[in-house]
Amino acid sequence: MLTPRTPASLVSVAITDAFLLPRLSINREVTLPLECAHFRDTGRIDAWRPDGDPAAPAERHVFWDSDVAKWIEAAAYCVQVKPDPALEAQVDEIVALMADAQLPDGYLNSYFIHAEPDRRWSNLRDRHELYCAGHLIEAAVAYRDATGKTRFLDLMERYVDHIATVFGSAEGQRRGYPGHEEIELALVKLFRATGKQRYLDLAAFFVNERGRQPHYFAGEALERGEEPHAERFRYYQAHLPVREQTTAEGHAVRACYLYAGMADVAAETGDEALLEACRTLFANLVERRLYITGGIGSTHQGEAFTFDYDLPNEEAYAETCAAIALVFFAHRMLQIEPDSRYADAMERALYNGVLAGVSLDGKTFFYVNPLSQYPPASHHHGWVTERQEWFNCVCCPPNIARLFASLPQYLYSRSDDELYVHLYAGSVWTTEVAGRPVRFEQKSDYPWDGLIHGEFGLESPTEFTLALRLPGWCRAPALRVNGQPWPLETDRGYARIRRTWQDGDTVELDLPMPVERVAAHPHVRQNCGKIALQRGPIVYCLEEVDNGENLADIVLPDDAPLSIGYEESPFARVPVITARGRRRDPAEWQGVLYAPLGEAYYDIPILAIPYAWWANRQPGEMLVWINRA
Amino acid sequence: MLTPRTPASLVSVAITDAFLLPRLSINREVTLPLECAHFRDTGRIDAWRPDGDPAAPAERHVFWDSDVAKWIEAAAYCVQVKPDPALEAQVDEIVALMADAQLPDGYLNSYFIHAEPDRRWSNLRDRHELYCAGHLIEAAVAYRDATGKTRFLDLMERYVDHIATVFGSAEGQRRGYPGHEEIELALVKLFRATGKQRYLDLAAFFVNERGRQPHYFAGEALERGEEPHAERFRYYQAHLPVREQTTAEGHAVRACYLYAGMADVAAETGDEALLEACRTLFANLVERRLYITGGIGSTHQGEAFTFDYDLPNEEAYAETCAAIALVFFAHRMLQIEPDSRYADAMERALYNGVLAGVSLDGKTFFYVNPLSQYPPASHHHGWVTERQEWFNCVCCPPNIARLFASLPQYLYSRSDDELYVHLYAGSVWTTEVAGRPVRFEQKSDYPWDGLIHGEFGLESPTEFTLALRLPGWCRAPALRVNGQPWPLETDRGYARIRRTWQDGDTVELDLPMPVERVAAHPHVRQNCGKIALQRGPIVYCLEEVDNGENLADIVLPDDAPLSIGYEESPFARVPVITARGRRRDPAEWQGVLYAPLGEAYYDIPILAIPYAWWANRQPGEMLVWINRA
Repeated sequence: MLTPRTPASLVSVAITDAFLLPRLSINREVTLPLECAHFRDTGRIDAWRPDGDPAAPAERHVFWDSDVAKWIEAAAYCVQVKPDPALEAQVDEIVALMADAQLPDGYLNSYFIHAEPDRRWSNLRDRHELYCAGHLIEAAVAYRDATGKTRFLDLMERYVDHIATVFGSAEGQRRGYPGHEEIELALVKLFRATGKQRYLDLAAFFVNERGRQPHYFAGEALERGEEPHAERFRYYQAHLPVREQTTAEGHAVRACYLYAGMADVAAETGDEALLEACRTLFANLVERRLYITGGIGSTHQGEAFTFDYDLPNEEAYAETCAAIALVFFAHRMLQIEPDSRYADAMERALYNGVLAGVSLDGKTFFYVNPLSQYPPASHHHGWVTERQEWFNCVCCPPNIARLFASLPQYLYSRSDDELYVHLYAGSVWTTEVAGRPVRFEQKSDYPWDGLIHGEFGLESPTEFTLALRLPGWCRAPALRVNGQPWPLETDRGYARIRRTWQDGDTVELDLPMPVERVAAHPHVRQNCGKIALQRGPIVYCLEEVDNGENLADIVLPDDAPLSIGYEESPFARVPVITARGRRRDPAEWQGVLYAPLGEAYYDIPILAIPYAWWANRQPGEMLVWINRA
Repeated sequence: MLTPRTPASLVSVAITDAFLLPRLSINREVTLPLECAHFRDTGRIDAWRPDGDPAAPAERHVFWDSDVAKWIEAAAYCVQVKPDPALEAQVDEIVALMADAQLPDGYLNSYFIHAEPDRRWSNLRDRHELYCAGHLIEAAVAYRDATGKTRFLDLMERYVDHIATVFGSAEGQRRGYPGHEEIELALVKLFRATGKQRYLDLAAFFVNERGRQPHYFAGEALERGEEPHAERFRYYQAHLPVREQTTAEGHAVRACYLYAGMADVAAETGDEALLEACRTLFANLVERRLYITGGIGSTHQGEAFTFDYDLPNEEAYAETCAAIALVFFAHRMLQIEPDSRYADAMERALYNGVLAGVSLDGKTFFYVNPLSQYPPASHHHGWVTERQEWFNCVCCPPNIARLFASLPQYLYSRSDDELYVHLYAGSVWTTEVAGRPVRFEQKSDYPWDGLIHGEFGLESPTEFTLALRLPGWCRAPALRVNGQPWPLETDRGYARIRRTWQDGDTVELDLPMPVERVAAHPHVRQNCGKIALQRGPIVYCLEEVDNGENLADIVLPDDAPLSIGYEESPFARVPVITARGRRRDPAEWQGVLYAPLGEAYYDIPILAIPYAWWANRQPGEMLVWINRA
């Protein structure tokens, strides 16, 4: 058996952070109601009603249940942190619709019940049935935890018990698994919420069957009279049994949901081989297939991974949901084996690729998060990239909502006599260690400043280990305990301080964060000769509104000093990077497309803003990787 | 009326050039027989027989006639230059099949006659009927010129006369035009070959109807019960009447075939507005949408132009046929108004983008000509880019064959008292000027050396102008007449020497061709911070076989000396460029994807070969645009 750490519970952490709190408030107060209204408007809630209902729309979709489920999950976290009877009533209304819709055998999927009742389980590969079930399970567990109400969880247990009769290795059962993973990690949540071993067993079954021969998707396709198309199994991470997979392949969201589920099953079963597969996949992902923004999925084609070191910037897919899925996977690995590599990936994704997915006002969303945006706003074709209020496939907005609503859990975790700090943010954590209650108050201006102040509240002196993550981006961390320098004893990227802590003891972690030029591995051909600007965990970018058109031609000399400050910032309390760079004047190229080298470069001021803040003012170009000189 | 120059006739120019002659011989002796065999094997020739023929394949294609026609055209040029009864017999056999197939009304299309007789002219937009007719016309004219035999031309005149009954502005006629242009320029050839005005009128009709409202393609689609899809008209250059088009749009081959046809019609009709549209389109094309290799068409999607300055390298389409089509367009403009800009574009395409389309041995072909090739040969997915022996859509190989077979025409042209030299290549041109016979012998080691020697053979002293093109790539041309320096009097990029020439007079044009670093316009975002190596008209590239994997990481410092020489060349008589560059060592990045700038660069030797020679040894990476430092 592995002995994973336990993440902080949602209610045990009070966020007080000047950076995060406004985002979380907007998530709760703006995004959440907006999404619910959209769901109602688009028929996603009425979809639970029988076909005859006049409010039912013409075109149901197979994954509508998952959209609503993610929203319920987000709502549950919000209700758990701060009671909200009106919000709770909305959820109860939806749960009642589900209860009415549930079939006598427990089956519960609004699409198939009403639109294609005869096609249940006929296409696991493409039709999202188990995926929707997974999201509903996650929502039901969150809602029970938030409210103590069990109705939704009861519905889902009945549904899962039905699923367990359909799928399994016994005679007459299907040895299938979802084309879009999700239910695996959800079933582990359900196991943890109920203690019922059969849910864990079903999760393990889905994980273990995946990619085996004879291939389920092939047989299923033949049953439907279709070609098996084995060459497409990679898209579903079903090209090999999961323990034999060594590279992150296919649809990036599915991949990381699968890996998260694999990590969960490994954590609960102690399956070392499965865990090793997770480690291998994680390493491949972060060492060869990860955008500097924490985005994953290099191509629009299949919203998918491509191959090692292939990270095109303008053509990047980097779906918001995929960055979120990476957070899920990394967070699970971090509980199994605290290693700052996991937390680094989680932080990189959170502060860049995920945060970019929603506008500052919480009202519009990016599905795709390129690292370079062209053409400029003036382009005569006039197409622009702006966050959208809504998508037909609206997976990302409620995914952001549930992640933000549950964010406090990601900051800390603990074991019997260890407290871990993974992310730095102003907060108060009330938990217990070595059998005694403890309060840990964190103060900082992170991510804009690297000085972290922690203070313990203890009823009596207690011996335990405080493990503080030393971010991978930091070159010279320094530690003080009660104001005195403290030697860094590090283990896998965590500074460990074991001592008998007293009430009022303080710890200060100083993480100097100069602005840095970051280069990519030489095999990332798209970034050769370029650098990105990063400060602390924050990746910066150039935007047209600040730097003019044609960002690609801007050159930042290696020796140009980089300044950080608030004065020139277009955003309150957000520091920007300024420097002197160079560019050419297109006016000197009138009528000329190619010319012998020797053209003049002109000095220009450069202003870089955090990547996650782009596209919050006006449409136009954006660029992360800047040409060196 | 315009007074265009007359291109040299095919038989008037004897190529003696050490560079071109082997290519043209291989074209005749290897490529041409190989293509004919492929056509037979794939049923393209039997396609002319009735359906009942057992040799007829299952899947005819609407543009098969054009493939065979281009091959006949090439064969005709070969026969014209050097009698070849066996080759002539092959053509006669095909012509006999066509004669048998031709319908009583003159209609002549192997696909529609046999496969869909009831669908004639029902989809001009997509089904290549008029396109195939155009290629057959070109072939028939060439074959008549080569052999004096009129049977093929007679068939085609009957077909065109039929077409002229179907299309026109009279009551009951269709105001249509082809979705794939080609017949326009072919009809002008037919007009010139027969002197029959009605063929020119039909060409002008097709040009002038294009893009007008009510839109023919829209009406035609509605007749078929389909949506008009007006947003796709740009693909066919049918989004606007041609005189209102100002940017090169849509499918690049179609575009340049249209522009060539427009230029032809303008030349014959003196239509200044049409000519002005050609000038505008040409300027847009070469100033904003042209690869340095002479390739055009930036995207695979629709094999098409995208927008100004959008020239992606790895994703370039740059179809071989499109570079050829640009040669056609530029060559026609050059006759109308001798301006070296046209000849420069023609030369750029010929020596780079077109030449790259066929292997040195004449047996394999590129359809797509990117300016960067990735991944390396070692890549675990194992896909590689190599020239192919054949394509299902095999437009490019016979297009190369007919261009090469007719190449002598492109070197020279003349008017009453002017002789123009557009391209430099060892050759003897026997023509007339000022009413008297003249012989012009050109000797050079072009494109590897810029010293051009010319000598006149004249029966008696004759006053005329010799106009020598001063290539746009040359910074310091110098001229000598009979060994004495001669002042450069230039007009639109041509050095004009007007004098009374004597038998034995010599002229020497010295075109210094140092290796140059070429930069692209600042708006070509894909090439910012990069240079290409060019010497004379030849664009160079790096290949993996010479420079190792991961070419994108190679840096060529601006101050690194560039050497040109034959010693290190993998190709006989082809000079290569050598220099010292730098690169990083991926071994130092083990397990690291992003790191603060400061990594070591190592000195490496760089070897660049002419772009057109790439992919002649082993598969692997290739790169034209190199990072500066």
